[in-house]
Amino acid sequence: MGEGRRGGLRKRRFRHPAQVVATAFGSAIAVGTVLLLLPVCRTAENGASLLTALFTATSAVCVTGLTVVDTERYWSSTGHAVILALIQVGGFGLMTLGSLLALFVSRRLGLRTRLNAAAETKSVGLGDVRTVVRGVFAITVVVESVIAALLTGRLLVEGQPPGRALWLGVFHSVSAFNNAGFSLHGDSLVRYQSDGWILVPIAVAVIVGGLGFPVILELVKRTSPRRWSLHTKLTLTMTVGLLVVGTLFVTVSEWSNPDTVGTLGWPVKLLDGFFHAVMPRTAGFNAWDYADVTQETLLGTIILMFVGGGSASTAGGLKVTTFILLFFVIVAEVRGEPQVTAFDRRIEPRVIRQALTVALLGMAAVVGSTMLLTELTDFAIPQVLFEATSAFATVGLSTGLTPNMGVAGQLVLVVLMFIGRLGPITLVSALALRQHTRRYSLPEGAPIIG
Amino acid sequence: MGEGRRGGLRKRRFRHPAQVVATAFGSAIAVGTVLLLLPVCRTAENGASLLTALFTATSAVCVTGLTVVDTERYWSSTGHAVILALIQVGGFGLMTLGSLLALFVSRRLGLRTRLNAAAETKSVGLGDVRTVVRGVFAITVVVESVIAALLTGRLLVEGQPPGRALWLGVFHSVSAFNNAGFSLHGDSLVRYQSDGWILVPIAVAVIVGGLGFPVILELVKRTSPRRWSLHTKLTLTMTVGLLVVGTLFVTVSEWSNPDTVGTLGWPVKLLDGFFHAVMPRTAGFNAWDYADVTQETLLGTIILMFVGGGSASTAGGLKVTTFILLFFVIVAEVRGEPQVTAFDRRIEPRVIRQALTVALLGMAAVVGSTMLLTELTDFAIPQVLFEATSAFATVGLSTGLTPNMGVAGQLVLVVLMFIGRLGPITLVSALALRQHTRRYSLPEGAPIIG
Ligand SMILES: [K+]
Ligand SMILES: [K+]
Repeated sequence: MGEGRRGGLRKRRFRHPAQVVATAFGSAIAVGTVLLLLPVCRTAENGASLLTALFTATSAVCVTGLTVVDTERYWSSTGHAVILALIQVGGFGLMTLGSLLALFVSRRLGLRTRLNAAAETKSVGLGDVRTVVRGVFAITVVVESVIAALLTGRLLVEGQPPGRALWLGVFHSVSAFNNAGFSLHGDSLVRYQSDGWILVPIAVAVIVGGLGFPVILELVKRTSPRRWSLHTKLTLTMTVGLLVVGTLFVTVSEWSNPDTVGTLGWPVKLLDGFFHAVMPRTAGFNAWDYADVTQETLLGTIILMFVGGGSASTAGGLKVTTFILLFFVIVAEVRGEPQVTAFDRRIEPRVIRQALTVALLGMAAVVGSTMLLTELTDFAIPQVLFEATSAFATVGLSTGLTPNMGVAGQLVLVVLMFIGRLGPITLVSALALRQHTRRYSLPEGAPIIG
Repeated sequence: MGEGRRGGLRKRRFRHPAQVVATAFGSAIAVGTVLLLLPVCRTAENGASLLTALFTATSAVCVTGLTVVDTERYWSSTGHAVILALIQVGGFGLMTLGSLLALFVSRRLGLRTRLNAAAETKSVGLGDVRTVVRGVFAITVVVESVIAALLTGRLLVEGQPPGRALWLGVFHSVSAFNNAGFSLHGDSLVRYQSDGWILVPIAVAVIVGGLGFPVILELVKRTSPRRWSLHTKLTLTMTVGLLVVGTLFVTVSEWSNPDTVGTLGWPVKLLDGFFHAVMPRTAGFNAWDYADVTQETLLGTIILMFVGGGSASTAGGLKVTTFILLFFVIVAEVRGEPQVTAFDRRIEPRVIRQALTVALLGMAAVVGSTMLLTELTDFAIPQVLFEATSAFATVGLSTGLTPNMGVAGQLVLVVLMFIGRLGPITLVSALALRQHTRRYSLPEGAPIIG
C-alpha cells in the first residue's frame, strides 16, 4: 500500500510532459472548431454544424483525414486555408513534441541524447527545444516545397490555371508530408490513378514525413549507416520491409479486381499497389475506392494501418518500432537467447514491456470501439473495423461509412482520433517516467503457458 | 556464429519431449483415419472418403468438434464408438502429456515440482508418470460418470429407451469433459435450448475439463486457497473472470435477437448466455445456431475462442495463463513497477517473453489462415475468421462454413487444428528448454516506442 501511495505521488509529479501534449492538441482542436464554425468558412449561407466543425478540426489537427462532408464542396477557400493551417500545426506539433518527449524520457533515464552533445540535465533545455523546432521547421519547408513544386508542375502541364495549380500543389504537398490525407478533390486522388507524376511525389512526401524527425535528422547528419542509432535502423528496416511486403500483397490482391486496377496495364497495377501500400501508413489518400477492394486488401490494409509509421513523425498508428521489437522478442525466444537483441544492441525488458503495453492497449481500443460502433450502426464488422482502425491510427482511409455513422458514431470516431493520435506517444513517456524500484523482491512464480 | 551452432546442438538434444507429443497425436490421427475408412463405420454401403475420415479423425483426436458431415447420420454406431474412443484418447493424452511436459520443463529449469516431493532429477521419472496418469484417469472417470448419470437421467425422464439414453448420456459426457463438442444430434444441443438439466451438467463438465490437470489436482488436494500455486490462482481468476464477463456480454448481445433467444423468457436468456460463454472455451457445443447470432456475439465469441481454457487441460486456445500474464504486464507498466508481479509472485521476463511469443504467433496463424481461406473461398471475413479461430483453438463452433469449404479449405482446417492443438504446448516447452546464456553482454539500445 505504501508502494501504491508512492506511485501516486510520482504520478502527480511527472505527469507534466504528457499533459502538455494533450493540452496543446486539445486547444488546437478547440480553436480549429471555432474557426470552422465561422460562416466565412462555408460555401453555403449558414455556418457548419458544431459536430461537423468539431469532427473536421479534430481530423485536421490529428492529421487523420476522415471527413463527414465533401471537403471540396462543403468548405469555402477560407475553410480550406483553415484546414491546411490546422494540418500544418498538427503535423509540426507532432514532430516537435514527439521528439521533445522522447528526448525528455531518454534524459530522465540517464541515457546520452543523440540529438546534441550538451551536458545531461534533468529536463530538456532551451537549446534542445530550439534545435528540434529549427530542425523540424527546416525539414518541413524543404520537403513540402519540393513536393509542391513537382505537383504544381504536373497540374500546369495538365492545363490548370497557375493560381489554382499552385494552391492545389501546396495543399496536397502539405497534406501528404503531414500524413493528413485531406484532398480538395471529392474522389481524393482516384482521377490520378494512372498518373505517376502525382502519385509518386505524394508517396515520397508521405514516407519521409512518416519516418519521424529523429530518423530524418540522423539520415541528414550521418551518411554512414554504421553510425546510425538503433532507433533509426529499426525504423528504416521495418519501413522498407512493410513497403516491399505491402506493395506485393496489395498488388497481388487487386491484380484481377475489375473495380480497381483489374482492367489496367501492369505498370499501373504496380504503381497503384505501391501507392496503396504507402497510404495506409498513415496518409489516407486513395487512388481507388476502398469500397471496391477485395477482402484480402481490406484485411491487409487494416494491419498496415494499425502498425502505422515512425515515432515522432506525422504518421499515426502504434509505430513501426513497437512491432519490430515484438518481432525481435520472438526471434530471441526461438533462438533461445536470454536477452532480446537487435542490430547488436541489447533491448531491456522494460522497453519490451512498453511495446507490449502499447500494442495490447491499442488492440483493445480498436476492438472495443469496433464493438461499440457495430452496436451503434448497422454496418458489417470488416468495414467498421476498417473505419475504427483508420480513425485510431489517424489514417483517414474509408470505405464510405464515416459520413453515415450518425452523431454517436461520429463522436466515437472523434474520441478515437484523439486518443489514437496522442495515446501511444504520451502513454509511453508517462510509463517510462513513472518507473520506480521495489524495495523488496518477491519469490518467483512459474505458471504454465500455452 | 558459434552461438548459433551451440543453439543448434541444444535443439537436437532437447527437442525430444515436444516431438513425442507431436508423434503421439499424429499416430492417433493416422489410426483414427484408417478406422473411420472401414465401411463398418458408415451408415451407407461405401466407406467414407479419405478427406472425410482424415478431417473427422483429426477433429476427434484434437478434440475440436468441427465436422464436414452430419455425425449422427453419416457414421454408424460403430463409427460413433470410434469417434468417442478417439476423443477419449485425445483428451486423456492432452491432460497427461501436457502435465508431463510442464513437469519436465520445470525440472529442467531447476524448480521444485509441485506434484510430488520426489528428489529433483534431470528428467521426469516413472513415479511422476504414474502419478499423472493415475490422477488424470481418476478425475476423468469420476467427472464423466457423474455427468453421464445426470444426462442419462434427464433423457430417461424425456422418455428415451434406457439403452439409448445411456449411450447418449455417455457420449455427450465424454465429449463435454474432453472439450470435444461432438454431438449425436445434427443440431448439436439446439433442441435442449431451454433445458437446464442438459445444458448445466455439460457446461460443468466443460469447465472442469478446461481447468487442466495441475489445477484440478491442487483443488482436490489443497482446500485452502492460500496454499494454491500461482498457476492455479491465475487459471481460476481468469476462468471465473471470463465466465462472468462472457455471460454478461453474450446475454446482452443476444437479448433481443429473435433468431436465438429474443422471444424466450429471461431465465432461458440467462441460461443460454451462460452456456454460450462456456462453449467457446473450447467445447464447441451450441444450443443456438451461430449463423443467426448478432455481429457482437460473433466478435466476442472469436475472442473467447482465441483465449481458450487452462494449460494441460482438454481445452484448446492459447490458454488463460498466457493472456492474464500479458494483463499483469500492463498493470506493472501502468503502476511503474520494475518487475511484473501477480499474487505476490515475481514473473520473470523469460516467462513474459514466452507468453508474448505464443500470443503473437497464434495471432499470426489465425490472421494468416483467415487470409488464405478468404482467398480459397467466397465467404465473408467475419465468418472465415470465426471458422479459422474455431479450428485453431480447437473449439468446433461453426457458422456452417466448414462442410462447404472445398478440399483445399478443409485441408487448411486440418492443419490448423493440428498446429493449434499442439503448437502452444510444444512451442512453450521447446522454448523453455532451449534457453541458453550469452557469453558477452551488448550495449543497450533504446528505440522510441509509440
Ligand atoms: K492521415
Ligand atoms: K472443441
